Amino acid sequence: MPMYVVGHKIPDSDSICGAIALAYLKNQIGEPAVATRLGDVSPETAFILGRFGFEAPELKLSYAGEEVYIVDHSELTQAPDDIAEATIVGIVDHHKLGDLTTSTPLECWIRPVGCSNTVIKMMYDFYGVEIPKEIAGIMMCAILSDTVIFKSPTCTTADIRCVEDLAKIAGIEDFEALGMEMFNVKSAVAGTPIRDLVMRDYKDFNMNGNLVGIGQLEVVDLAVFDEIKAELEADIAVLKTEGERHTVMLLLTDIMKEGSELLVISDDVEVVERAYGKATENGRVWLDGVLSRKKQVVPPLQDAFA
Amino acid sequence: MPMYVVGHKIPDSDSICGAIALAYLKNQIGEPAVATRLGDVSPETAFILGRFGFEAPELKLSYAGEEVYIVDHSELTQAPDDIAEATIVGIVDHHKLGDLTTSTPLECWIRPVGCSNTVIKMMYDFYGVEIPKEIAGIMMCAILSDTVIFKSPTCTTADIRCVEDLAKIAGIEDFEALGMEMFNVKSAVAGTPIRDLVMRDYKDFNMNGNLVGIGQLEVVDLAVFDEIKAELEADIAVLKTEGERHTVMLLLTDIMKEGSELLVISDDVEVVERAYGKATENGRVWLDGVLSRKKQVVPPLQDAFA
Repeated sequence: MPMYVVGHKIPDSDSICGAIALAYLKNQIGEPAVATRLGDVSPETAFILGRFGFEAPELKLSYAGEEVYIVDHSELTQAPDDIAEATIVGIVDHHKLGDLTTSTPLECWIRPVGCSNTVIKMMYDFYGVEIPKEIAGIMMCAILSDTVIFKSPTCTTADIRCVEDLAKIAGIEDFEALGMEMFNVKSAVAGTPIRDLVMRDYKDFNMNGNLVGIGQLEVVDLAVFDEIKAELEADIAVLKTEGERHTVMLLLTDIMKEGSELLVISDDVEVVERAYGKATENGRVWLDGVLSRKKQVVPPLQDAFA
Repeated sequence: MPMYVVGHKIPDSDSICGAIALAYLKNQIGEPAVATRLGDVSPETAFILGRFGFEAPELKLSYAGEEVYIVDHSELTQAPDDIAEATIVGIVDHHKLGDLTTSTPLECWIRPVGCSNTVIKMMYDFYGVEIPKEIAGIMMCAILSDTVIFKSPTCTTADIRCVEDLAKIAGIEDFEALGMEMFNVKSAVAGTPIRDLVMRDYKDFNMNGNLVGIGQLEVVDLAVFDEIKAELEADIAVLKTEGERHTVMLLLTDIMKEGSELLVISDDVEVVERAYGKATENGRVWLDGVLSRKKQVVPPLQDAFA
């Protein structure tokens, strides 16, 4: 019976490319593994997979009785619904340590770097397994996505060195140009249903007993939202009610201006204002220099809730 | 400000030797670190430290406002009392994933091997740092202790290869003889206060909301307990009441016969009998082949409580 390698709900490129890359590595070291996913792939991920000739991993929602290797999170809210009935054999991640627990020993490869695929590259190096050209390509793109082409404060020298190594293996001469092409795909929001946009890169967090949802849309120019911002706000309000959430926020991130406009719907907007030290206006606030949900948005809010 | 490197409460040799070995490594890679401990060192650990010329790390119970690197566990019950007010920068461990969480990204080096020091050896290899002779010696002894000189079912080929490597570095020709010397020190129970014996290698676990304490004494011949078994039983009953625990168990492990006598005091002895598939007699039961609390005692009990 193979293990399943799966990223988080509402998978991003790191979750999908990481599952493919890690499943390949596991098979190479004699541990049968199958990459799976918990949801639809984003346009950005579809672009990456198409560029390097991969199909999306199999959609699989239930893991009861199976062995599972978790990619890119360690949070119950982001894991398969029946993860408690599965055996977690490993976790590769680059976030804060979440509330997943196990009843048996496991392996955890968790590092404070910009992307899970940077950690997976370390795993390839540890086992001395050669990375195929195409897998190097998707791993590289996942790192460029998570680090916003090295602009994010989450980006470390390990991520940069890793992208340089992977670009060589993949035979990509100008990885920055490929990164911009990828972010242009990501910026195309016209014609997409509003809910799909809100959920494109959305995560729920448990903050001191309060359910808090935070979505993020990274684009090369915030002007793409001018026409639809009110609709986005209306929809996160619906999402808040549907899920009995305390707060739902949507980060509209301008990767060129290097900052984010935060849209907030909350039972207690003051906790959000306290977290970021800025007043909201009609549920909106510009946060200069904020590119990273993980490093700049979640920790201050978690502290404000504590 | 240095980070503190600290093992679990009621530290065993893995926690103490691991803290010393990891603090040295961190200092070598330019991250100031100080090894500390959460309690008295055991006679076994004192023997190891003395054999290789080390002092015990500083006793330090409070870590609020400090950076902490956790060794040999990921459980709140085994961590410093004020760990929630500290910043956990890393975890090196070889147990099931416990309930510690963080609000910021960290590094976790967790592997399903027999000893944290085997994982720390991987860290030395990763960073390309040479292990000093004396540190190799204490790391080797910690692995021999945790794996019961390779007899424990928790022992992996990685542990054996690691001991062989470390023995060479430490210049120890017969590591098995040193291991037996160590276990003979561990077996000397005469003259030790009963509570000290019960607590010598004791851990509390949260099992589905129930506090369960499990101690273990590993000796080369169970006959050393003949005179004091009734006193041990009386004392774990007191410990159960004092801590409002659901269950307290003491494993008397015979490393030569390769099995353990389990002493049990419980609000519901049937949950224990269900866990191990054997009836107790006057709160005692012999478990043949059981050497490992982590692998053979905790998981079945956790499942029985679930």
